[in-house]
Amino acid sequence: MTNTRVESDTMGQLDVDQTRYWGAQTQRSIQNFPIGRDTFVWGRPVIRALGILKKGAAQANAELGELPQDIADLIVRAADEVIAGQLDDHFPLVVFQTGSGTQSNMNANEVISNRAIEMAGGTLGSKAPVHPNDHVNRGQSSNDTFPTAMHIAVVLELRERLYGSVGTLRDTLQAKSEQYQDLVKVGRTHLQDATPITLGQEIGGWVAQLDYALAEVRHSEAGLYDLAIGGTAVGTGLNAHPEFGDLAAKKFEQETGVPFRSAANKFAALSAHDALVQTSAALRTLSGALMKMANDVRWLASGPRNGIGEITIPENEPGSSIMPGKVNPTQSEALTMVATRVFGNDATVAFAGSQGNFQLNVFKPVMVHAVLESIRLISDACLAFNDNCAVGIEPNLERIEHNLSINLMQVTALNKHIGYDKAAAIAKKAHKEGSSLKEAALGLGYVTEAEFAEWVKPLDMTHS
Amino acid sequence: MTNTRVESDTMGQLDVDQTRYWGAQTQRSIQNFPIGRDTFVWGRPVIRALGILKKGAAQANAELGELPQDIADLIVRAADEVIAGQLDDHFPLVVFQTGSGTQSNMNANEVISNRAIEMAGGTLGSKAPVHPNDHVNRGQSSNDTFPTAMHIAVVLELRERLYGSVGTLRDTLQAKSEQYQDLVKVGRTHLQDATPITLGQEIGGWVAQLDYALAEVRHSEAGLYDLAIGGTAVGTGLNAHPEFGDLAAKKFEQETGVPFRSAANKFAALSAHDALVQTSAALRTLSGALMKMANDVRWLASGPRNGIGEITIPENEPGSSIMPGKVNPTQSEALTMVATRVFGNDATVAFAGSQGNFQLNVFKPVMVHAVLESIRLISDACLAFNDNCAVGIEPNLERIEHNLSINLMQVTALNKHIGYDKAAAIAKKAHKEGSSLKEAALGLGYVTEAEFAEWVKPLDMTHS
Amino acid sequence: MTNTRVESDTMGQLDVDQTRYWGAQTQRSIQNFPIGRDTFVWGRPVIRALGILKKGAAQANAELGELPQDIADLIVRAADEVIAGQLDDHFPLVVFQTGSGTQSNMNANEVISNRAIEMAGGTLGSKAPVHPNDHVNRGQSSNDTFPTAMHIAVVLELRERLYGSVGTLRDTLQAKSEQYQDLVKVGRTHLQDATPITLGQEIGGWVAQLDYALAEVRHSEAGLYDLAIGGTAVGTGLNAHPEFGDLAAKKFEQETGVPFRSAANKFAALSAHDALVQTSAALRTLSGALMKMANDVRWLASGPRNGIGEITIPENEPGSSIMPGKVNPTQSEALTMVATRVFGNDATVAFAGSQGNFQLNVFKPVMVHAVLESIRLISDACLAFNDNCAVGIEPNLERIEHNLSINLMQVTALNKHIGYDKAAAIAKKAHKEGSSLKEAALGLGYVTEAEFAEWVKPLDMTHS
Amino acid sequence: MTNTRVESDTMGQLDVDQTRYWGAQTQRSIQNFPIGRDTFVWGRPVIRALGILKKGAAQANAELGELPQDIADLIVRAADEVIAGQLDDHFPLVVFQTGSGTQSNMNANEVISNRAIEMAGGTLGSKAPVHPNDHVNRGQSSNDTFPTAMHIAVVLELRERLYGSVGTLRDTLQAKSEQYQDLVKVGRTHLQDATPITLGQEIGGWVAQLDYALAEVRHSEAGLYDLAIGGTAVGTGLNAHPEFGDLAAKKFEQETGVPFRSAANKFAALSAHDALVQTSAALRTLSGALMKMANDVRWLASGPRNGIGEITIPENEPGSSIMPGKVNPTQSEALTMVATRVFGNDATVAFAGSQGNFQLNVFKPVMVHAVLESIRLISDACLAFNDNCAVGIEPNLERIEHNLSINLMQVTALNKHIGYDKAAAIAKKAHKEGSSLKEAALGLGYVTEAEFAEWVKPLDMTHS
Repeated sequence: MTNTRVESDTMGQLDVDQTRYWGAQTQRSIQNFPIGRDTFVWGRPVIRALGILKKGAAQANAELGELPQDIADLIVRAADEVIAGQLDDHFPLVVFQTGSGTQSNMNANEVISNRAIEMAGGTLGSKAPVHPNDHVNRGQSSNDTFPTAMHIAVVLELRERLYGSVGTLRDTLQAKSEQYQDLVKVGRTHLQDATPITLGQEIGGWVAQLDYALAEVRHSEAGLYDLAIGGTAVGTGLNAHPEFGDLAAKKFEQETGVPFRSAANKFAALSAHDALVQTSAALRTLSGALMKMANDVRWLASGPRNGIGEITIPENEPGSSIMPGKVNPTQSEALTMVATRVFGNDATVAFAGSQGNFQLNVFKPVMVHAVLESIRLISDACLAFNDNCAVGIEPNLERIEHNLSINLMQVTALNKHIGYDKAAAIAKKAHKEGSSLKEAALGLGYVTEAEFAEWVKPLDMTHS
Repeated sequence: MTNTRVESDTMGQLDVDQTRYWGAQTQRSIQNFPIGRDTFVWGRPVIRALGILKKGAAQANAELGELPQDIADLIVRAADEVIAGQLDDHFPLVVFQTGSGTQSNMNANEVISNRAIEMAGGTLGSKAPVHPNDHVNRGQSSNDTFPTAMHIAVVLELRERLYGSVGTLRDTLQAKSEQYQDLVKVGRTHLQDATPITLGQEIGGWVAQLDYALAEVRHSEAGLYDLAIGGTAVGTGLNAHPEFGDLAAKKFEQETGVPFRSAANKFAALSAHDALVQTSAALRTLSGALMKMANDVRWLASGPRNGIGEITIPENEPGSSIMPGKVNPTQSEALTMVATRVFGNDATVAFAGSQGNFQLNVFKPVMVHAVLESIRLISDACLAFNDNCAVGIEPNLERIEHNLSINLMQVTALNKHIGYDKAAAIAKKAHKEGSSLKEAALGLGYVTEAEFAEWVKPLDMTHS
Repeated sequence: MTNTRVESDTMGQLDVDQTRYWGAQTQRSIQNFPIGRDTFVWGRPVIRALGILKKGAAQANAELGELPQDIADLIVRAADEVIAGQLDDHFPLVVFQTGSGTQSNMNANEVISNRAIEMAGGTLGSKAPVHPNDHVNRGQSSNDTFPTAMHIAVVLELRERLYGSVGTLRDTLQAKSEQYQDLVKVGRTHLQDATPITLGQEIGGWVAQLDYALAEVRHSEAGLYDLAIGGTAVGTGLNAHPEFGDLAAKKFEQETGVPFRSAANKFAALSAHDALVQTSAALRTLSGALMKMANDVRWLASGPRNGIGEITIPENEPGSSIMPGKVNPTQSEALTMVATRVFGNDATVAFAGSQGNFQLNVFKPVMVHAVLESIRLISDACLAFNDNCAVGIEPNLERIEHNLSINLMQVTALNKHIGYDKAAAIAKKAHKEGSSLKEAALGLGYVTEAEFAEWVKPLDMTHS
Repeated sequence: MTNTRVESDTMGQLDVDQTRYWGAQTQRSIQNFPIGRDTFVWGRPVIRALGILKKGAAQANAELGELPQDIADLIVRAADEVIAGQLDDHFPLVVFQTGSGTQSNMNANEVISNRAIEMAGGTLGSKAPVHPNDHVNRGQSSNDTFPTAMHIAVVLELRERLYGSVGTLRDTLQAKSEQYQDLVKVGRTHLQDATPITLGQEIGGWVAQLDYALAEVRHSEAGLYDLAIGGTAVGTGLNAHPEFGDLAAKKFEQETGVPFRSAANKFAALSAHDALVQTSAALRTLSGALMKMANDVRWLASGPRNGIGEITIPENEPGSSIMPGKVNPTQSEALTMVATRVFGNDATVAFAGSQGNFQLNVFKPVMVHAVLESIRLISDACLAFNDNCAVGIEPNLERIEHNLSINLMQVTALNKHIGYDKAAAIAKKAHKEGSSLKEAALGLGYVTEAEFAEWVKPLDMTHS
């Protein structure tokens, strides 16, 4: 057994590992919530956000005269270590705990308190000169701090992880779209042969979807700027200085560059997390767009001989443990699996978000965890897809040209000249007889050879 | 305005359309819940189930001495009309009402009471000689009758609608599977070319999925035999004869042939509808299986020239308002849309099912409605798919043979003879050079021509 | 059997009811898709949108010289009748049909064509002088018209139905919030007693949630202004005048007042419906907010004697068929059931939205239907809740005051004066001994009677 | 940098950490799929299942003469180490990889091959004398082995983790139910006061839900006995001995005690995972039941003074960082958060399960991961809830008796004697006047005092 020291809270005393800064309440949570410990311990984003939160709160309290400056300074120094990741080992709690995140808020209070006490030469666990509740948690409640940390964590992950990763993939696709802007190929609707498009247009459709979805994620991000901070226990701000919420938000902005602000209505900010639900939904839409793109890529690359095969993608690994030489669209598979996971996470978030009662929603931890997981997975998968697939997408010119040459739907160009019904007769005749469109058209006598040559030009059909 | 009569309940009097049998409580519900009236009025299955319920309850009460025989007889006669569909116009209520279905239970009580009064020559609205609460609802509460009606309605719809419809499609596919049991074609995994299978095997996989899913639906059905009847208001059976629940269930069995029984635990039967959640989940699994099959069909039929095209399906309607001669896999589209709807309905059911409090779950109407809708849609769509698509599935022999002839994954058959690594080298060489497998194999000198002929036989690869 | 006439399309001839304007393709769809006919026939919003679409398209085509003015005029006159609802009986198709909505587009083309022919004195079914494809569908494909109609239908339903209905409820709650802004009562977090708030604040939290959710729905609406029109079959605009998309959108704006425009990227507009997915998600968030509010209402009104009972709500109908005198929060029940339904619809929409392939998503009908259903249900349920519940919410002053007087969490106000730990000791002592907070505080000697009176003032605790 | 050795596959050579047994394909996967590495590395259940799989396969192959006995023995010895958990550090791959799990199958093949080579005194990476594909993967494909491992992993987790954990909670509740079988209290329906039940009945309802849900999970487990093994690449069993599937399944049964068998239809076994979808659904139902129970517990324990407060639960930790002395139902919160997570996981599984194409579903890893996560979370949370909450549930007799004494719904017992309408009048009068039921009943003259005493007995109302 490791060496221990005694820590206490209002319920009594407990032994805590001497090498850890946490206190009695964190220790109780470890013991009371042994749920999913392998994979559900909070990671960097939430720990860092708690650090940012406690630092800004101390600064604001000091400025408002609610905390002695020296106490605040100690808290700031300890919080800076939390922000920097130096104290991650002191945040042992898992997602499935109190639904308000109280224990993680107290974990931050306790660790910062003890680390500050240590800096001040005090005794760990003594709560002096820096008390976890009276000082670190000054003017705060878990009910307003944890949702504040949730917003900070999610916004920073969006900004520092998601936009760049998805943007990289988006830019790769955009470059491919431009590169193949005039490469004519068949279009497909209902999976059936349709009129021509260019490969650049086809890829450009994916880009447009990503652009829309990213814009929606960014819009949802703005909803997260509104913070619960200042609402304390039930939204009324009891025990917080009237200017605390605004000033703390200002401090968070200074730390992060994000225009956070104290929410206009704190009652909603504690009892609902609709901006997080909206963010999750936008991530789901983004995943849907990625799924469509990844599916198109694997279908277009299907084959090599028995599929569509109009593009090739990088061969990254042997595809089969039994079929020698097989290569599979594995990046599409990973990305679409991520999409199904994000859909599930979103279902969790929306369900949890609807379950608030009175002044509190007690599904906070599971909500923020799911959103952060979605961000992480989308980001990682987009980078992997970009690096190992998208950058290597190449047209299979031979297949593209062959498919175009036998496509019947170019008959559509004749509608304006001979009408839909006659055009249909041409297509049906060609289909039935296995002939070319031109043969059928001339055979029916609806157009002359010169007219056909003039009217049926695939490239012309790709733009109006 | 239509002629009216006065109806009353414990809250007072209201005017009711003289041509309708319902009473005051139904009238209040019409006025208080104008929600989705166009499409959410209860249909046959629930009305019929309420009729079966009230008939059986009256019979049981009479037998137990809880109702005079003549009163019971009147109720039975009126309920028989409800069962037969003669009084559907007298059930005007919508799904979104009281969460216990109280108003629909009272609708049944009121209609049967008034119709029975009419049969007895009494005055509508007089509640004599047949009182809606004291007689028709004798020994019952909405809290046990409505979930009982839910189970009856769902079981009968499964038996009379779903099994037959899905079974018809299943049998068609099974016949196709047998017909093409030896028609060798390429297999596909990861959308990429794989080793050969037969078309019969491919279709047989769909049949196996349907068989499993149907068996699971049937299993879930058995959970619905347990009825809340006998639990009355909170599950204790207050005001019901101790043998009422069992006897009523026996009467329902006599009416329907379904082995209904009074649930062992009535508290759970009122406050949760987990058997319905399980039924919904099984319908979701069935929809997932149908989606996979319908997707395979449309991909295999894709083309006619730029896709896979290994099967043909019936051409049922012009596919495009602009592309003449286009034909689309529309039955697959309708069926997969149904699948997404069933998934959504299931999400509703599971969410609602989790929201019970204390002695009651008050999401009963929305749950049963969603399950019934899923049953109806799956049934209708399977029949449409069967009649307009499945029966007409035909192999495109030319395409199947061509694809098989150029497929490289038959190299897998060499693994056992020359090892995975050499086999991979052959496949890679053929792929790179665009040559046949045999050419590459001989070119590398790993096999003789005779060995190749002996070892690489597509049909042999389709069975071990 | 009704009298029939012969209609034809590229597949041949069919008999159609002489009293109906639809043609061969609509008739084929009736026969091929007998799926959910009772409740899934398109309603007003989609039919009207198709009318608006065809009218604007004809106007734009005429202006661009693509249609003779007299033909366009006939189309406009017939389309105006579609818009006005005069021809609803001529739109018999159901949701579960071709995934592109082709058959409903053709239904509009056929009905308008035949009605226009009739106006011109021609022969129904003759396609002269107004051809369903060459004229009514001029420069269009189902692939761009149907999603255009989807957007028009949803935007108009949001504007004409949802905003007003939800807004009415929102305003009622806002007025209640203002009315009770200073009525102090206990707060509750984790369902446990917490520090005081006012009833106005509590209700104000609901209003803030509705305001946020409504703003998000409005934001999502803006995404629907981008229309597929002008993209025709695959997004390239083949067969449409280059200015057609923009001009048609302008015509739609003139008709509706909505700033529609032709989408910048038509490929995405056909192959994905992400703006609709986002709209659905915003409706889900709104439903989550409504669920929270409705749950709070019913919990606060729980009782009358064994629950919380701090508010009363209108008694609208007898609550129980067995428990005399019982009154239930039925409007909350209907509204929360609607919420679960909207969640399910949203699951359908997001799933379907992810399933596009190449140049088309073929889940269009099921997507727009689910969104329209959600709008309708939310709107109806909010109005019903408003009229039958929200307007009658009243505080139960006696219960509110009693609860406040025994609440222990007002001890929180002492934190700043005596510290968290001593405050906790007071609360624990009072809880254990069943005494008042004041008794315990004085008993422990941590505060004087004067200090307690000065520091523990419920109303002061409700604002900072 | 660590020391490395060269490993190779059909794509070439790579450096691999000398301290690890994995080979080239595992290394490629590490590099190609850096997705969610923090939390999505496979854990014990899947690694162990792969060990069981490879061991049984080697035994079966040896018995069938497909592998030399000495090679098989080496494989068995290495696989035993995998089963025992000694080689977990050699399984570095994450969930988001190839959708067939090929790379994890190869990871097992490579690690077992190299460990076996080491045991035989050979050179790591030499593939001799034990080749990863030709020997360890003999008669197998990832396409049949990975889903086989999925089933083995899930069944063992259900048996070794879930049933015991949930069963423990179930038994605790059952004991409480029996203990309080005669403790009469008020019932609640629609959150409103209802007729009496006993606390034992109330708790018994939760037990009945758990029993049903557990039975359904066990039923779904049986569907997992059918294994894909023997199907190899596409379901035809190419390269596997005809008896391999059956014999391998028999070996798995010997190892685990689970009656596994080779699936009757291997095509479905590779291209769909419906038994896993059903298992996930049953876990969702179980979670719904747990959610209802956990909600009831926290509502019944709400207060201590401003809520229902009819039971008390253990005080495990300080509930608030700001409100001193507050205690919250944190175990209910953790458990209900788990429920929302399981709902989300299930959405992922069902979505992924619907996305198979042709001979393969390539969402295998995400499906099994989500199911295993659900099992783990439910199990952990049930144990935590049991130990820290359920065992300590106690009735608050004072509150229970008080509530019962003022409850009005006991009027229901009078229905049979004086009719529903008169009973309603009594209840309404008492409610309006704030009087007792008895006062109102006597006041209206509908019953005598003796009759009231005889007819209105709470305990009698709790059983029929």
